[in-house]
Amino acid sequence: MSEVHASRRLRLRERCSAAGSAAALVSRPANIRYLTGWAPSDAVLMLAPAEDLLVHRRRVYGEPGEGTPPDDLRRVVLPSPDGDPAVAAADLAPGLGADSLAVEEHHLTVARHRAIASVTPSLRLLDLGQAVEQLRLVKDEEEIACLRIAAEITDQALGELLESILVGRTERHLALELERRLADHGADGPAFPTYVGTGPHSGAARHRPTDRRVEEGDFLTVCLGACYRGYRCEVGRTFVIGAAPANWQIDLYDVVFDAQRAGREALAPGASCREIDLAARRVLERAGHGEAAGSWTGHGVGLEIDEDPRLTPSAMGKLDACVPVTVEPGVHFPDRGGVRIDDTLVVRPTADGGPELLTITTKELLAL
Amino acid sequence: MSEVHASRRLRLRERCSAAGSAAALVSRPANIRYLTGWAPSDAVLMLAPAEDLLVHRRRVYGEPGEGTPPDDLRRVVLPSPDGDPAVAAADLAPGLGADSLAVEEHHLTVARHRAIASVTPSLRLLDLGQAVEQLRLVKDEEEIACLRIAAEITDQALGELLESILVGRTERHLALELERRLADHGADGPAFPTYVGTGPHSGAARHRPTDRRVEEGDFLTVCLGACYRGYRCEVGRTFVIGAAPANWQIDLYDVVFDAQRAGREALAPGASCREIDLAARRVLERAGHGEAAGSWTGHGVGLEIDEDPRLTPSAMGKLDACVPVTVEPGVHFPDRGGVRIDDTLVVRPTADGGPELLTITTKELLAL
Repeated sequence: MSEVHASRRLRLRERCSAAGSAAALVSRPANIRYLTGWAPSDAVLMLAPAEDLLVHRRRVYGEPGEGTPPDDLRRVVLPSPDGDPAVAAADLAPGLGADSLAVEEHHLTVARHRAIASVTPSLRLLDLGQAVEQLRLVKDEEEIACLRIAAEITDQALGELLESILVGRTERHLALELERRLADHGADGPAFPTYVGTGPHSGAARHRPTDRRVEEGDFLTVCLGACYRGYRCEVGRTFVIGAAPANWQIDLYDVVFDAQRAGREALAPGASCREIDLAARRVLERAGHGEAAGSWTGHGVGLEIDEDPRLTPSAMGKLDACVPVTVEPGVHFPDRGGVRIDDTLVVRPTADGGPELLTITTKELLAL
Repeated sequence: MSEVHASRRLRLRERCSAAGSAAALVSRPANIRYLTGWAPSDAVLMLAPAEDLLVHRRRVYGEPGEGTPPDDLRRVVLPSPDGDPAVAAADLAPGLGADSLAVEEHHLTVARHRAIASVTPSLRLLDLGQAVEQLRLVKDEEEIACLRIAAEITDQALGELLESILVGRTERHLALELERRLADHGADGPAFPTYVGTGPHSGAARHRPTDRRVEEGDFLTVCLGACYRGYRCEVGRTFVIGAAPANWQIDLYDVVFDAQRAGREALAPGASCREIDLAARRVLERAGHGEAAGSWTGHGVGLEIDEDPRLTPSAMGKLDACVPVTVEPGVHFPDRGGVRIDDTLVVRPTADGGPELLTITTKELLAL
């Protein structure tokens, strides 16, 4: 993998030079992981003319899910736990041939930025902007392979839950059980806090589990995902609890199912992000559920669970091939809950068979 | 509770005025929670001459552990999920009588700070610094009561684990089980990711659990804590697995036990933070374990798990009464592990009985 990381750093270096900056300081953990395969907390990566450098605080062990320290990069360990690696790195920049340094202004705080400026007044500080995030948008096949495994683990954990008794258990217990099953199947950990909503909480986006118990007749919405080698995916399903769903439940489920399918089918290289959102949203609106729909239909996934692109009504930009996204429309009524269906897919051209569905748990309405 | 929050806001307002700023913008979630009882993600709190204001993105439900929305503050909900509440709040500041605004430069990113400056060029932006964190240092009795409950929950979860079979289980499973038990006993959730280290991982500070299984003869270190109504505590214990500890284990345990006791006993209003660190560290150094000791001995706890004060060799400042801190010296050898013992205590004057121990799980060396 270290060649992959070295070539990513080379691309970033080219972007930096083109933008007129001699060196770059990367502080956002997911960006550091993308460029080095490693992301201990509080590390920074500096790409300078003379060499690349990782500056971090002392660590005895690698942590699961944080990858392994790269062997092709010099590492500088700060002597004090109070030191800021970003400040220490900037201090080294002039000695490594840099007269300017592009930093991640969307990640560094004002206070850290000021501390950097004060230790190296001769260094011109520039903005690296979202340069690394832009490199991260389109995934290579190795990254997609990690997402595929993350999705398999997620489907397994969800499948096992469906075989157990659900009535009477709390949202929080179901969430904890799902997270345990993710770990059992080899996840580094959950990709995000597991969402479980039952009854009036069903269908709500990102509903943190409460002590409400699952009851007969409830809709139950779960949304979970595994993190595997740093890559995060997401699946969301809504089930009905009991022998048979009520008519309103079947009708609502059908609408959200159609909306989600419309969103999935609209995924294609060159399609605009707002088009995908619109494809799904239009189905909800036609059924009179525009008000109860959420404000987004999906988002990119990768080393973070909520990446670009955003699939929203105001999103700019178009999709590329090999961009993994979620498609997750939902409808939620505060009094009786609702439905949310969420998949992770990879955008692929029609010639390659169209969008690749990573999360394959059935989307039939199951009565559990 | 809303009177408590209003009086905290009043104190912050007085500090702001004294520092010459007409209004304050608080963005750090724990600080917002301290001042309002509520902390939805991405919210900001503005204290302006005309009124106080919470600006946030749409939320359907309160989330467990995030408290309840205050009813004595006007709330402004952003229409778009892409908007930045900090920018929206700053935009409202001049209309609320503010010509200057103190922001949390240690929390706001450079990019957000610039966005604020660009929407309201007439507003003078100042630095609020750690004003709210300073107010948070000394806890009132209501806050300490929450910490006390968090500690009870933590002790219960740990106590139950000790009654179960440990040999053959992985660090990750033990951590997940502890977190489930915290939830069972009424925690909002874990105060931080549970640390479990066995064999060579034992004694390491903040060791993320791996798939290593507990074996006969191991040291096993666990460190966990409950979050209760936002307040976070921490307990850490080291056990030996099997019928009887080896001599080196007994000796090492005794040293760390003595160090931790020395640290606890040094806690007093007026004692300097580095004095506490030194009290514990000196015991480890005298036993020849100075090199294997960590870089800190403890830290404050409250709405965050790692707050001021820091108990380190270079820490500045003195302890006050009613400041809760951890005392957690440890020794770790990469080849055979080590010992860590961690308690949460509240600094109290001798007249009140000295330091109040919140986490009461036994510190005898248990062979499990």
